Amino acid sequence: MANISRRNILKMGVVGAGTLALSSINATAAANEKDVKFDEEWDVVVVGSGFAGLAAGLTTAKKGNRVLILEKMGRIGGNSVINGGAMSLPNNPVQEKQGIKDSKELFMQDCLKAGLGLNHPELLETLAKRGNDAYKFLVEEGVVFDENVVAHFGGHSVPRTLTTKNHSGSGYIHPMVEQFQKIENCELRRRAKFDDFIVNNNGRVVGVAIRENYRFDDNLYSDDLENTSGEKKIIKAKKGVVLASGGFCRDRIYRKLQDPRIPDDVDSTNHAGATAGVLLKAFDLGAYPVQVSWIQFGPWASPDEKGFGMAPLLTQEGMFKFGFAVDVRNGKRFMNELADRKTRADAEFKILKEAPNAYPIAIGYEDSFRLINPDVVKKALSNDKLVGVCQSLDEIASKYGVPLDGLKESVKKYNEGIKAGNDEFGKPVDQLKGELFKENGPYYVIRLSPKPHHTMGGLKINEKAEVLSSKTGKPIEGLYAAGEITGGTHGASRLGSVAITDCIIFGMIAGENI
Amino acid sequence: MANISRRNILKMGVVGAGTLALSSINATAAANEKDVKFDEEWDVVVVGSGFAGLAAGLTTAKKGNRVLILEKMGRIGGNSVINGGAMSLPNNPVQEKQGIKDSKELFMQDCLKAGLGLNHPELLETLAKRGNDAYKFLVEEGVVFDENVVAHFGGHSVPRTLTTKNHSGSGYIHPMVEQFQKIENCELRRRAKFDDFIVNNNGRVVGVAIRENYRFDDNLYSDDLENTSGEKKIIKAKKGVVLASGGFCRDRIYRKLQDPRIPDDVDSTNHAGATAGVLLKAFDLGAYPVQVSWIQFGPWASPDEKGFGMAPLLTQEGMFKFGFAVDVRNGKRFMNELADRKTRADAEFKILKEAPNAYPIAIGYEDSFRLINPDVVKKALSNDKLVGVCQSLDEIASKYGVPLDGLKESVKKYNEGIKAGNDEFGKPVDQLKGELFKENGPYYVIRLSPKPHHTMGGLKINEKAEVLSSKTGKPIEGLYAAGEITGGTHGASRLGSVAITDCIIFGMIAGENI
Repeated sequence: MANISRRNILKMGVVGAGTLALSSINATAAANEKDVKFDEEWDVVVVGSGFAGLAAGLTTAKKGNRVLILEKMGRIGGNSVINGGAMSLPNNPVQEKQGIKDSKELFMQDCLKAGLGLNHPELLETLAKRGNDAYKFLVEEGVVFDENVVAHFGGHSVPRTLTTKNHSGSGYIHPMVEQFQKIENCELRRRAKFDDFIVNNNGRVVGVAIRENYRFDDNLYSDDLENTSGEKKIIKAKKGVVLASGGFCRDRIYRKLQDPRIPDDVDSTNHAGATAGVLLKAFDLGAYPVQVSWIQFGPWASPDEKGFGMAPLLTQEGMFKFGFAVDVRNGKRFMNELADRKTRADAEFKILKEAPNAYPIAIGYEDSFRLINPDVVKKALSNDKLVGVCQSLDEIASKYGVPLDGLKESVKKYNEGIKAGNDEFGKPVDQLKGELFKENGPYYVIRLSPKPHHTMGGLKINEKAEVLSSKTGKPIEGLYAAGEITGGTHGASRLGSVAITDCIIFGMIAGENI
Repeated sequence: MANISRRNILKMGVVGAGTLALSSINATAAANEKDVKFDEEWDVVVVGSGFAGLAAGLTTAKKGNRVLILEKMGRIGGNSVINGGAMSLPNNPVQEKQGIKDSKELFMQDCLKAGLGLNHPELLETLAKRGNDAYKFLVEEGVVFDENVVAHFGGHSVPRTLTTKNHSGSGYIHPMVEQFQKIENCELRRRAKFDDFIVNNNGRVVGVAIRENYRFDDNLYSDDLENTSGEKKIIKAKKGVVLASGGFCRDRIYRKLQDPRIPDDVDSTNHAGATAGVLLKAFDLGAYPVQVSWIQFGPWASPDEKGFGMAPLLTQEGMFKFGFAVDVRNGKRFMNELADRKTRADAEFKILKEAPNAYPIAIGYEDSFRLINPDVVKKALSNDKLVGVCQSLDEIASKYGVPLDGLKESVKKYNEGIKAGNDEFGKPVDQLKGELFKENGPYYVIRLSPKPHHTMGGLKINEKAEVLSSKTGKPIEGLYAAGEITGGTHGASRLGSVAITDCIIFGMIAGENI
């Protein structure tokens, strides 16, 4: 039983006795302001420099507040700056120009369907209501949208996804950082790690304990628990603290506590700093833990490259459509390659649980990539660590250790399904218009592994982006949160391209309310 | 959109501004021992008097420790005493007597399948290993098992479920309480409510703050946040505190934060005291929140009676098998009535989300109940608030507002499915051996509503039942937990009859390790 044998990490202590360099780093409760001496004083402190943190920082700075944004990494922008830049907005200006009919209700229905009805309705409604305010805000900050493109992302009833001119999250982050840095008396400080909250006698958050010159170390099993770098400082936040530190897809301990199927050595589509440290400190302060078990995996990723990588570009619109995936142990297909993310990730996990190194493979051929930008395809295919080129099915069989018979049988069965318009796994083969899987190479092969992509759960916030306390059922005074560190907006599963929407809107709202 | 309109509770604060009688009751952090004066001193304090609490209390008391068990309700035994008394144990003595081959591995496989592979392997393995120790312990405490019965519960590969002579959880609770009360220098104190932890400078749990003469009040929206009754006391626990306070199926706030589909007025199969208060205080102390989003619903329950009630007895082995369920809005069937709990509950929730009061109905007839104890059937059918008797389909149609055409069409289609051996919803109609739905009354009708039944998530414990801290990744010194307040053992969904196994084994382990 594979996942019994992986128990070592969970055994006794999650990181095992004696493996921690200094377990007392974070072992304290939030300090009271009367027990500390403040080194600096600001109006607002924002933790995190991605979409949500910058939106909050800019919005509140424009109201005249002195804002300090903390970023623990050496690089600004977390996952946001490596994001694809797609942002869905119902009733957006580009839809209008193109005559696409959309509505807030339709947007909410789409999100609720993906979220299995578990979305917190008041948060979802806030997204639907404030979409165009977010658009206006971003344009004012210098974000340049591609005004001719409104994409139709999976799970959305209509095309409603905008993108920046440069098709990247950096198209938001760079202008926002530039704008923020122009504002007098504000600062974005890198390598500044949040350690804990400072509270007053009424439980109000009045500051943060941080470490400067922090050197994040991905080689540690848990950077949050083990990293002793940096110098301590106590910062006063007169008006409030905004938590915008993102999700925990790269937190080996906390993601595994929610889903023990995730091996420690599995990569994620996220940047290395996406850990649960700030989230857990907020729970420790009494914030409600909400829907933390829901982790979204990308079934289109590969173990043969780091992070999000190039594989998703080739598999999603390529090999998964014009091609298929097989279990290397028998050469058989094992999923509808176009099913939703959860269904496909679960199918891949099932194989990897039975045989931890038997990564399934996606198989395609040159024609498979015809819907994708040729420059992207060229670049991705040239990565021979990621993509295997095989001249024939025999070569795939010998190179990847797949039984040739099974592989041939899969081609036959798949093509019969296309002819009959009825795929054995329910793949919508009508989309292929009778186009069969090619019986001659060359073939392109990519090994597959589900990678943690987005953590749905987190802190409970209200429509004002205030963090609610389990001690009172009311907001924790002085504490706000926005983006992936919060839970509830997306329910069980976030629809593609709603992350930026969520981060910008609730970041903006936090800034408005401080 | 029905669940948007239900947002009122989540709006702004979870309980709304101003509705709380006294929001400061629990608004403090755990107190330091140097700031309090202890009123009493014990070796061990156990919070909760169900299976887990009594197992912990007895085990540690027998080692010579002075034990105080706290029970916030006026009644001892929480959900345990109203439980059906079924306890699954792999390789148990009754299996052996009957020649049933079982294994620890098979037990774990069954649990992992139900748990969608999310079970924490080291906890599951502990259950498998310690089953017969638990059996021995219980027999020593005076629990009388029915030595001729080993039941085959759904989802288990073999019959492995034992039951007490009286077929009730009270068959465990009553002898255990009796034994505990015989032990000198130990006490089980009712109406004693846990409020918070007392810690020392090293973060070790050294006691608890409680209120005596507590009067739980189910009329409050949140008893934990609003109830001001009782007199405060500070209790020292020299060796440790065991949390065994159960799950949160009756916590209107916390269950809704995890699953907003649950209406506030929906009942639960649990006793009224099953709230999240102790759990949230432990999160607030830094315990890891694990898999809190997974709530198991009973799809066989009725809104027309309180608690678990009689409906499950009539529907599960009766109307769901020899009969069916329909959507009252159109008279059509909407689920495989014998699918797993989650599938059926989701199908019922879908209807109730679209039309909050359109409770689906189960329909059967006298023959439907032939597998069930006749005394139970007689008693249940006599409850006319629960069971409607209708002489014909026409009467069902008029009494429950169901379109008659749809109802007739359902009977026709269902019977065609039985003849063809192929049900439209995948109900395993081969089990019915050609027995058709009767076209003539009298019929018995029960309205259905999914009721929260078990909360899978909670505190992370290790194999020693020690609670792990997110601040250190190691056990919180002096703090143990067992039973439904813990998370991970059952993964996404607990298999029937594994709850007692879990509670007794980890309760016993906590007692052994203090």
